[in-house]
Amino acid sequence: MSTIENQITLHIIKLLKEGKKDQFQTVIDEYQPYDIAKIYENLPEKHHTRFLIYLTADQIADLIQELEHDFQLEVLGKLGVEKSGEVMNLMDNDDLASLLENLSPSRIEELLSGMKIEESQIVKDIMNYPPETAGRLMTNRFVWIPQYYSVREAVDKLKSFAEYSETINYLYVIDDHKKLVGVVSYRDIILAEETEKIEDIMFSRVISVTADTDQEEVARFIERYDFIAIPVVENEILVGIITVDDIIDVVISEATEDIEKLSATGKAIDFDTKAIVAAYRRLPWLILLLFIGIVSGTIISQFEETLEKVVALAFFMPMIAGMTGNTGTQSLAVVVRGLITKEVNKKIITQLVIRELKVGIFIGVVCGILITIIALIWRGDAILGLVVGSSLVITLIIGTLAGTIIPLILYRFNIDPAVASGPLITTLNDILSLLIYFGLATMFLAQLT
Amino acid sequence: MSTIENQITLHIIKLLKEGKKDQFQTVIDEYQPYDIAKIYENLPEKHHTRFLIYLTADQIADLIQELEHDFQLEVLGKLGVEKSGEVMNLMDNDDLASLLENLSPSRIEELLSGMKIEESQIVKDIMNYPPETAGRLMTNRFVWIPQYYSVREAVDKLKSFAEYSETINYLYVIDDHKKLVGVVSYRDIILAEETEKIEDIMFSRVISVTADTDQEEVARFIERYDFIAIPVVENEILVGIITVDDIIDVVISEATEDIEKLSATGKAIDFDTKAIVAAYRRLPWLILLLFIGIVSGTIISQFEETLEKVVALAFFMPMIAGMTGNTGTQSLAVVVRGLITKEVNKKIITQLVIRELKVGIFIGVVCGILITIIALIWRGDAILGLVVGSSLVITLIIGTLAGTIIPLILYRFNIDPAVASGPLITTLNDILSLLIYFGLATMFLAQLT
Repeated sequence: MSTIENQITLHIIKLLKEGKKDQFQTVIDEYQPYDIAKIYENLPEKHHTRFLIYLTADQIADLIQELEHDFQLEVLGKLGVEKSGEVMNLMDNDDLASLLENLSPSRIEELLSGMKIEESQIVKDIMNYPPETAGRLMTNRFVWIPQYYSVREAVDKLKSFAEYSETINYLYVIDDHKKLVGVVSYRDIILAEETEKIEDIMFSRVISVTADTDQEEVARFIERYDFIAIPVVENEILVGIITVDDIIDVVISEATEDIEKLSATGKAIDFDTKAIVAAYRRLPWLILLLFIGIVSGTIISQFEETLEKVVALAFFMPMIAGMTGNTGTQSLAVVVRGLITKEVNKKIITQLVIRELKVGIFIGVVCGILITIIALIWRGDAILGLVVGSSLVITLIIGTLAGTIIPLILYRFNIDPAVASGPLITTLNDILSLLIYFGLATMFLAQLT
Repeated sequence: MSTIENQITLHIIKLLKEGKKDQFQTVIDEYQPYDIAKIYENLPEKHHTRFLIYLTADQIADLIQELEHDFQLEVLGKLGVEKSGEVMNLMDNDDLASLLENLSPSRIEELLSGMKIEESQIVKDIMNYPPETAGRLMTNRFVWIPQYYSVREAVDKLKSFAEYSETINYLYVIDDHKKLVGVVSYRDIILAEETEKIEDIMFSRVISVTADTDQEEVARFIERYDFIAIPVVENEILVGIITVDDIIDVVISEATEDIEKLSATGKAIDFDTKAIVAAYRRLPWLILLLFIGIVSGTIISQFEETLEKVVALAFFMPMIAGMTGNTGTQSLAVVVRGLITKEVNKKIITQLVIRELKVGIFIGVVCGILITIIALIWRGDAILGLVVGSSLVITLIIGTLAGTIIPLILYRFNIDPAVASGPLITTLNDILSLLIYFGLATMFLAQLT
């Protein structure tokens, strides 16, 4: 906490203790929901109840959406079923759904029972969509109008649904069958004459997504077309909209997921995760790698004789394995990030594989020559130098190709290419490089001193 | 290209060949700029000139912002200085600035000479801000109003600057000294009475950034407060605004940068990068790793005697080095991603380091026991098993801590923590693990068979 945050917290505590509700409201009014959430989280717990009593249901709804998960549950607990129902009616359905999704079914039922039936039904519907789809991200906090409305009528409807129109900047236009037929921005409304018909000023080639669209796909649409909201339809009927702020969260979490997979961190470890949970999530990968390590060991043990005769071979093992692993990770990262922004077809893939083959040959030859010279100078053994150097050329080419082709194959079979995570590619490349290195060494053994 | 895209392209070619400009416009009208850009890029080059002739300057300005860089330059070249000046006047200044930044100074001067002086001056100003700052991302395509305006006057100004208000949803309010004092959303305008004063309905606690704010910081604001635009000020004077669509691009490119650094890919390699360029960008890291690999080799060579006596030690080398490297990468990924969304202070850092220490001990003990048992069964040698197992315990703890502390130290000194890239941490951990492993082995050598 900074000094300023400390001062604000102390000021708030004073107002709460002295029961100055009006002054408390004046202070709170000056802040954004995110800031209010931080104030709440910094406040000693004994002040939380009065803090909540002093807020309106509307303010609590805004606050709760910005709190960390544990605090969200605390707030709902403190409010009781009735008040929390009132607050939940005011929350964005998608935020509420993601708040509830990890609770027990009985607790979910209990909390939803305090809500208006039509609102709780919408939340239940959202929770029924598969995770990471458009259905999970959509909100019903938007205003729709029939196409035969005049601009005047649209403005009137907007005024009477003012609280539904806060974050959105479009009115969605539907026909008699509730089908989405157009969209009008608030700007269009301002610029139009009051008597104009909505159907004459609306943009009718609306781009929409279906509720089962993958969230990455939705993000791609928003990014591509610079939208700030995109409608969600089912059988052409408008069922919700997704706003750009949710998409930013999607982009961040998808990138974090990619990094988690590339580094085999295991899912969802952040600064707040408990040590035992973090260890438990990381262990499966490490144990898998341990067994793959044993495979490497077994391979080396096959070459025990070679190694006994030329112990110096062991000196270059980490270097060859490390570099092969690294070049594979480099290729992997290029492919994984490339697949996010590009649509791929056979032509692009062929070009990419050929490109990476060339890259592999180029870096293989450069590094190979370098290490041959170094090994020659260091150990004074030309044959050893050549074995190490030529091994590196071959393993770098193979490592580069493996890092390119494996994620592409996974992508082809609709498996997230990032699961061919860095460590897996690294370990695979380890094994390949050991086989090549010791294989070559054994072939040349007669020449090695 | 899909079949549908093929059909559209063929249809467009037909219209261009037959000179049907009106029908061409009808078709183009149905698409978003991104789609028009894809059509242009798919079109054989010989049709490009007429395609551009058939578009209005406004449409070309939209199109150019969505094209790949090479095509952007092609379009400017085909238009000639005068027409391209007209188009550039209509482009978002920030997009134009990033289009121009890699061109030669003389070419920039030539292109800017076709623009209105005041517009070209703004573009030059933007290009003078350091890369990756708010100044580089801001646009002047917004509408400002004085605070004493009535809603009616605001609407009139909005109508006369209609083309400046396309993508934004706010009017920015300034005082007599051009200082930013408030913001009014289009929704506020619609909901208000015509006679109301802007200063009475505006939101006056505007959150803004300065032109030299880092773009990651700007993204954090937008993400935190769910804004769709944020004003940029210099000495409290409004100089531009940044829109959420640019922020999505920032979030994507920052995540890609993190992945590039974690995997030491080298900067800016995508599917279109030429093989020789990609190899050249990747080589520096690989050569650095090669030399670090030599250090590993030198360390092992210090234990040549130990290794000669117990060649089996080599079997477990890749496993120990690999696992230590991996646990370091896991910790690194958690820290790097955590720093993006969290503000850190001493308390959080201490907690994190202690957490990771516990994680290290936990996974160290589990994996250590496992490998001791495996080594014992495999090699039938209890001492070897204990050496391997206890090495793994120690190296996993150290590896986990190194992956946590090193990026935090870098962060503390304002160095991007992701530059402590995966491979660097891996290699460092390689060296540490070899020292510990062979150190322990040498100590217990008398007992090893």
